[in-house]
Amino acid sequence: MTDARASRVEALRRALTSAEVDALLVTALPNIRYLTGFSGSNALVVVSAVEVLLITDFRYQEQTALEVDPAVRVVIEPVSLWTRLWQLLPERPGIERVAFESAHLLYQDFQRLVEQGARWQWRPSVDIVESLRVVKDPGEIAAIRRAAEIAVAALERTLPQVRPGLTELQVAGLLEGALRDEGSEGFPFETIVAAGARAALPHARASTQRVATGDLLLIDFGAIHAGYCSDITRTFVVGQASGAQREAHEVVRGAQAAALAGVRGGMSGRDADALARQYIQEAGWGDAFGHSLGHGIGLEVHEAPRLARTVDAPLPVGAVVTIEPGVYRGGWGGVRIEDDVVLTPVGAEVLTQFPRQLLELT
Amino acid sequence: MTDARASRVEALRRALTSAEVDALLVTALPNIRYLTGFSGSNALVVVSAVEVLLITDFRYQEQTALEVDPAVRVVIEPVSLWTRLWQLLPERPGIERVAFESAHLLYQDFQRLVEQGARWQWRPSVDIVESLRVVKDPGEIAAIRRAAEIAVAALERTLPQVRPGLTELQVAGLLEGALRDEGSEGFPFETIVAAGARAALPHARASTQRVATGDLLLIDFGAIHAGYCSDITRTFVVGQASGAQREAHEVVRGAQAAALAGVRGGMSGRDADALARQYIQEAGWGDAFGHSLGHGIGLEVHEAPRLARTVDAPLPVGAVVTIEPGVYRGGWGGVRIEDDVVLTPVGAEVLTQFPRQLLELT
Repeated sequence: MTDARASRVEALRRALTSAEVDALLVTALPNIRYLTGFSGSNALVVVSAVEVLLITDFRYQEQTALEVDPAVRVVIEPVSLWTRLWQLLPERPGIERVAFESAHLLYQDFQRLVEQGARWQWRPSVDIVESLRVVKDPGEIAAIRRAAEIAVAALERTLPQVRPGLTELQVAGLLEGALRDEGSEGFPFETIVAAGARAALPHARASTQRVATGDLLLIDFGAIHAGYCSDITRTFVVGQASGAQREAHEVVRGAQAAALAGVRGGMSGRDADALARQYIQEAGWGDAFGHSLGHGIGLEVHEAPRLARTVDAPLPVGAVVTIEPGVYRGGWGGVRIEDDVVLTPVGAEVLTQFPRQLLELT
Repeated sequence: MTDARASRVEALRRALTSAEVDALLVTALPNIRYLTGFSGSNALVVVSAVEVLLITDFRYQEQTALEVDPAVRVVIEPVSLWTRLWQLLPERPGIERVAFESAHLLYQDFQRLVEQGARWQWRPSVDIVESLRVVKDPGEIAAIRRAAEIAVAALERTLPQVRPGLTELQVAGLLEGALRDEGSEGFPFETIVAAGARAALPHARASTQRVATGDLLLIDFGAIHAGYCSDITRTFVVGQASGAQREAHEVVRGAQAAALAGVRGGMSGRDADALARQYIQEAGWGDAFGHSLGHGIGLEVHEAPRLARTVDAPLPVGAVVTIEPGVYRGGWGGVRIEDDVVLTPVGAEVLTQFPRQLLELT
């Protein structure tokens, strides 16, 4: 195993011992990638005290040879991964109590455990691997940093090409082409390009609407490097900004600056969220910030921890999270500014280096 | 309701009556979109004899107003969709037995039904909405046809720009930029651009590998229009093809032509698969075709029905499916040719109109 993977598996084994189980059945693909390196879309993994077993299908035979850690036992199964699991599991001595991932196992697959796996004791578990993934190691932070650099470089190349008359889809295409050209392995989520009143839709997709002079233009996107995601948002004005646009942008910029300056590892998710929320409320826009401040990023673009009003738990040092306040008014538009940061004991290091003041695209 | 949506809901209600349940809890997002028009990423839907109820969160308030069918009762919930469900469901008279989607409900959410929803009788169900989605109506076929046209137009624009020295990622970026420019709402799956020996990986992603003269170049991608997907593959040679490359391509082209000519609604998935498989086996490449012939496409890029050795059920007339035989040799490369077709009682209408002979990119 690579050193990083070996230490992940060792940490998982300690967690399994604490949970008094002999093994974990891993069905969540990001968790499988974290533990083994496998990036395909179909696999079952069993981690026990002595082995990491990965079962996948024919399509991934070549790929497993290229990317799966050599310490993992790989089994290629032509028909049913589950059938093969029921053949292989009885051959493993000392496995009686097996945890499964209750947030990543479908009801129909749980029925397989009950029916075909009746000889084992199945224990629902929550976030066993996810809790390991929260604190990033230096290699992971380097990958996210690179994904952030790719995203910023692509945005810098795209903005000079934005002009009134392009559709939101065309702007997304320019950006995505630049992301690929800069080396992004993919798109961690559907690129959001929202012009004018559509910027009030916090999760608008790009559409055939044309960008017009005077529009707010909200762009929310990311890059992927070595499997790790970045996630960045900036909101522009096409042409000269109106007073109302300037005011909304300045409220969000100030709120984001307050959050970037105040957030640190050890603070609760609630207190982090309050850094921006209080600023926005005091500026008179409280009701317009309807989502939470941010979320962890890593192998997934939304992962633990959450920076939200409902989260009392402390944010771990070494987590990588987004800081993304926004204000939205139906029928008018919206502004969001989002950066990715590594939490330290004393603050936050920003990974997405791009100007935060209002840019007018002219 | 639009006529198409109203008839879908009516068909679902007949299925619920047959299944002897009073309502269906819909948790699969494509099924929610099919029934209501909602395209967001977070919602619960309950379909009963008298109502279609959709619960979603703050982020989608504006979006639901724009896209959800006016006959659907929409509830915006600021905190927890499940908590709101337990408030709303008791207010609905006549609902006692409720089906849930066992292939789309996580174990942890099933536990909510057992614990917080103990006053209802929960019945696992499989493919109730999916089975309605298999047969496409004219509007759906028109949307897939448009998605196919977008994909073909983007490929035509991209090929003249492919040259040795570009990375697979750069080729993907050119293609994706063209897809956006042609109006694709997104990418139904990660674009596959696989050069040289990487074309042997049936699910290779685009990588930083550079395209070289003499390489096989396999490109598998799609477009999205009005939520509906297309899915097309062609395999090219960069420069002049070798004899072995020509042979492999000719085997796949012949197998695909046999399948396109022979497939029709009413045929079993097994018999459809055999059309291409037998051709490839008789050509001496049998072991090299390791996946199945095709799959349905629609709101999802992989949906029912499957064209595979294990499927005895007849393929429905009106289904839209891929026809995608391929041969792969580890360390050497691979060839796949994929088109999308509508099944009719007498044959198949091809939606992806692009040459199938071997193209040398020079």
